[in-house]
Amino acid sequence: MAGGQVTREDKVNLEEKFARFSEYWKPKIVGEVNDFYIKLVKFEGEFVWHRHEDEDEFFLVTKGEFTIQLRDREVPLREGEFFIVPRGVEHKPVARKEAQVMLIERKSTVNTGDAGGARTVVPDWI
Amino acid sequence: MAGGQVTREDKVNLEEKFARFSEYWKPKIVGEVNDFYIKLVKFEGEFVWHRHEDEDEFFLVTKGEFTIQLRDREVPLREGEFFIVPRGVEHKPVARKEAQVMLIERKSTVNTGDAGGARTVVPDWI
Repeated sequence: MAGGQVTREDKVNLEEKFARFSEYWKPKIVGEVNDFYIKLVKFEGEFVWHRHEDEDEFFLVTKGEFTIQLRDREVPLREGEFFIVPRGVEHKPVARKEAQVMLIERKSTVNTGDAGGARTVVPDWI
Repeated sequence: MAGGQVTREDKVNLEEKFARFSEYWKPKIVGEVNDFYIKLVKFEGEFVWHRHEDEDEFFLVTKGEFTIQLRDREVPLREGEFFIVPRGVEHKPVARKEAQVMLIERKSTVNTGDAGGARTVVPDWI
């Protein structure tokens, strides 16, 4: 968590941070606001269905577009749009091409929620 | 708080929401993520020096540019950049021209912090 100080002291340029990594579906922490993290993630392809029992999850598209699949509908999102998945609601992000996304979620939130499995990651600060 | 349901159900387009209001320094709520609000605000001119004792405050520029003055330095921010003012740190936003800004802060956060006064507002949902 050595980056913590950096983030608290300096401004963050989203584009510059996104240029620092290329893996998909692996959120990176770029800021903390009380008990919340600001994370950046790149999506391409399909993620897994999951839900967060007690945590709402905010997705803002900063570049590209992707779709949040819910069990009863789809929410297509493009640059400059956000969607908040309410706690308890199953969802699956899907991106046909690379999308760059800013997340806001509790520090306790795990990327795969209740699903767990191989795609679970512990995010690093960048 | 009638807009609450809308925000929880629908995606939000930032540009469309910013088009709904024109006053400066009056944050509007556009989403909630657990005990945090997502707010939009337009800055032009100078705000007041203040601090939030227990609450960090996140500022992301979505259009234009502005500067966060701290007691010991200035943090100029342009589109696609964010800065988190740590709790307890005095700050004053200043914008020479209109800037559009997305805030993330606890529901308890008051725009004027410890300063209070005439520029204090209770934000509405839009």
